[in-house]
Amino acid sequence: MSKLTIDLNADLGESFGNYKIGSDEKIIPLISSANVACGFHASDPAVMIETVKRIKESGTTGLGAHPGFPDLMGFGRRYMELSDDEVHSIMLYQLSALDGIARTYGLELNHVKPHGALYNATFKNENLARVIAQAVKDFNPKLKLMGLANNNLVKAGQNIGLEVVNEVFADRAYEDDGTLVSRSKEGAMITDSAAATERVVRMITEGKVESINGKDVDIQADSICVHGDGEKALEFVKEIRNQLEAQGISIETL
Amino acid sequence: MSKLTIDLNADLGESFGNYKIGSDEKIIPLISSANVACGFHASDPAVMIETVKRIKESGTTGLGAHPGFPDLMGFGRRYMELSDDEVHSIMLYQLSALDGIARTYGLELNHVKPHGALYNATFKNENLARVIAQAVKDFNPKLKLMGLANNNLVKAGQNIGLEVVNEVFADRAYEDDGTLVSRSKEGAMITDSAAATERVVRMITEGKVESINGKDVDIQADSICVHGDGEKALEFVKEIRNQLEAQGISIETL
Amino acid sequence: MSKLTIDLNADLGESFGNYKIGSDEKIIPLISSANVACGFHASDPAVMIETVKRIKESGTTGLGAHPGFPDLMGFGRRYMELSDDEVHSIMLYQLSALDGIARTYGLELNHVKPHGALYNATFKNENLARVIAQAVKDFNPKLKLMGLANNNLVKAGQNIGLEVVNEVFADRAYEDDGTLVSRSKEGAMITDSAAATERVVRMITEGKVESINGKDVDIQADSICVHGDGEKALEFVKEIRNQLEAQGISIETL
Amino acid sequence: MSKLTIDLNADLGESFGNYKIGSDEKIIPLISSANVACGFHASDPAVMIETVKRIKESGTTGLGAHPGFPDLMGFGRRYMELSDDEVHSIMLYQLSALDGIARTYGLELNHVKPHGALYNATFKNENLARVIAQAVKDFNPKLKLMGLANNNLVKAGQNIGLEVVNEVFADRAYEDDGTLVSRSKEGAMITDSAAATERVVRMITEGKVESINGKDVDIQADSICVHGDGEKALEFVKEIRNQLEAQGISIETL
Repeated sequence: MSKLTIDLNADLGESFGNYKIGSDEKIIPLISSANVACGFHASDPAVMIETVKRIKESGTTGLGAHPGFPDLMGFGRRYMELSDDEVHSIMLYQLSALDGIARTYGLELNHVKPHGALYNATFKNENLARVIAQAVKDFNPKLKLMGLANNNLVKAGQNIGLEVVNEVFADRAYEDDGTLVSRSKEGAMITDSAAATERVVRMITEGKVESINGKDVDIQADSICVHGDGEKALEFVKEIRNQLEAQGISIETL
Repeated sequence: MSKLTIDLNADLGESFGNYKIGSDEKIIPLISSANVACGFHASDPAVMIETVKRIKESGTTGLGAHPGFPDLMGFGRRYMELSDDEVHSIMLYQLSALDGIARTYGLELNHVKPHGALYNATFKNENLARVIAQAVKDFNPKLKLMGLANNNLVKAGQNIGLEVVNEVFADRAYEDDGTLVSRSKEGAMITDSAAATERVVRMITEGKVESINGKDVDIQADSICVHGDGEKALEFVKEIRNQLEAQGISIETL
Repeated sequence: MSKLTIDLNADLGESFGNYKIGSDEKIIPLISSANVACGFHASDPAVMIETVKRIKESGTTGLGAHPGFPDLMGFGRRYMELSDDEVHSIMLYQLSALDGIARTYGLELNHVKPHGALYNATFKNENLARVIAQAVKDFNPKLKLMGLANNNLVKAGQNIGLEVVNEVFADRAYEDDGTLVSRSKEGAMITDSAAATERVVRMITEGKVESINGKDVDIQADSICVHGDGEKALEFVKEIRNQLEAQGISIETL
Repeated sequence: MSKLTIDLNADLGESFGNYKIGSDEKIIPLISSANVACGFHASDPAVMIETVKRIKESGTTGLGAHPGFPDLMGFGRRYMELSDDEVHSIMLYQLSALDGIARTYGLELNHVKPHGALYNATFKNENLARVIAQAVKDFNPKLKLMGLANNNLVKAGQNIGLEVVNEVFADRAYEDDGTLVSRSKEGAMITDSAAATERVVRMITEGKVESINGKDVDIQADSICVHGDGEKALEFVKEIRNQLEAQGISIETL
């Protein structure tokens, strides 16, 4: 079960027009995969180009599409009840937009990770997971699909032959079924970076994580989600990197 | 100077969500090139997919991107003072979005024609024409750039090595300098289809058109712009097709 | 239980920019209350002004706000999971926008009816109904709140002291609990105008409607929802009007 | 010509959804008039409510509407070629939206100042200035119209009987005709706060400002535009306040 490499991924390219958020230039050197917003829940054409260029220049960070619901005001965090065809079409449009921009600047898409409510809704909605996976496959069957470890999205991807990436969270507690503890519950966030790293190392080396109820849950860790907004978040990422490398686990793009 | 083929192009795929406009299924069989909206001034992901499928099924109509200003409320008909970088980025985004959808459904982009104010503004703005042409080239140098015959857009395209398409209008009067007479002026529209066809035939066979002031103006006709909204417009297209074919001029995609 | 007046309401002012829908000028003379879109799921500032002017000119049709989810692409028909504060704020914004325009042209708002998914979601979501009712009261406690007859929205309105309007549907079948039969079920639509009118007359005079399962359900009919898009819909409205008047029931604004 | 009071105004309420900008809570206590974005170029319903509440709580800051072009991506800084009717309608919609929200929270609008390109375009476009002024008057003739001192907007307002506010800029150089030196020119910005204050004091007490070419230009200073984004901007405002008060000039809402 031991594994010597792990991917670190972060959401970025989320600025819009005059609105700047994130510290993309600081987080890119620390991660191996970037999930780039595609203009529906965040970003705009100029931000996408700038972000693609930055990732290209980094030389080592994999490029992923981070499509979301068409809800800029809600930053894609509000669930929208779309039909299967509508989900399929907004996936294709966003993948296409980022893919074309990336190719123009000499990069290729490596993976896809849905954003916000489009990601979270798949935890309990197998059909949505299937529709998303199918859209990725229809667009480009070589793309990897990233989803919550051992959950519907990666299962849907595997079922139709996509390479999948099991994503784990260093700073979040898990329920017994392997889903994330809702942020509104006490104990949902792991704020101590040492504890967080220890958990991640165990996920990678043993394939287990202790749930909020104290049970050991099977979990496959292919990529760790980290955050790049704010100095504290960046410090957290640096510590995780250092600890992982100290344990002989190298950070590598999928 | 005589020429035996001509392209007929029309703007389509302009519905949005619950809003349906145009008679795409009726106009597609009558034209050889379709300019498809890309979601900024009109269209949405589902409409784009539906439109691409229809064009694919037609088997004979070339697919073009029809990017516009990001102004759905104004249908892209209101000039917006964007920086060069902003124009470049909205061009790339829109080309990418349609291109990816097209490839997903087994089609390739053949040409690009800017929409509305983004097209009209190039008549007097050489720099804007250059920026648009450069964006097309950056995205895919094999794409053809369609613009007003003998005007800035086709010149800018030629200057950077793009294949260009000189577009003429059957139903519009011309100024002495080869630009279109503004719709607000009397005599701007040619409403008689026989007269319109006669003018078009002369453009194709002689490379000339008579301006609103009675002068002969040099004009290169590679593609004729037609409209597909409403029964009257469709009749007009059918008449032009019939007359052209009667004159031995065949309708062919660029 | 007998009642001699009834209100007829229709959704209108739903065009957007270059996209024209509905037959507002034809439906306005046939109804007594107009639910006017406020720019989030449909309409724009120019359309709202034009619509307010038309209603003002009619002299007899009451003006209502028809706020919806901020989802133009989905025409407000897709449920969005907004927080209570977000629902409250989009209600206030839309009511304000229409109210100010109305006052500028010499009209006052008379009622509020949520649109599409914002209306339908209240059938099973009492909290949402309460939030909507509170927003209406906060904005102007003299406004009437229109909702599905005998359902959460009118109950929530009554509970906080708003005047409410029980809305019934001439062309829809009812479940035993007084909610509408989903359009996806067989028998959901009443297409025969004679049958539709008969049902409506019974709702008004007896306060009862027969459910799709053959049970008599209590229903209070203050306003009948009609549609104005298309000649057939307009004919339907005319027939209902004629039949109601033949039965001695007059059409009057709330 | 001496004058003992002056208004300090700042643009605020410009956050949008997840995007936070400005330091509204810090700038509000320092100014006497707030120009609040209305949801077209910036802001959203929740931000508008929060902003109105903050201004209400301040007790001393006048509330103004800050309507802009419908261009969130461009933050209203890109000129859009709208028809007169379109300008009129977007003005009315935005004024209405803010006015209704303000009244709901117990505040009244005091003034209107167009934002960004909608403001700047009036410097050379008298007709646009007239249309804006007319929209303000149509909505509420008691509202004050704020515009560049001695320029088209205030003139248009005066011509139709609106109370107007001549706005001056502490940190900008002036051309001989009283317009602002374009930011792209050298010397356009006055970065020294002592110099800036000295200029402002002279505008208030003498009604003159020295142009970038060394000429004295007549200028009426009713309100000074200040900025609240960033610590440096806030320091600048504090210094101007202190210096003005030291000169016996009190800061008061219009």
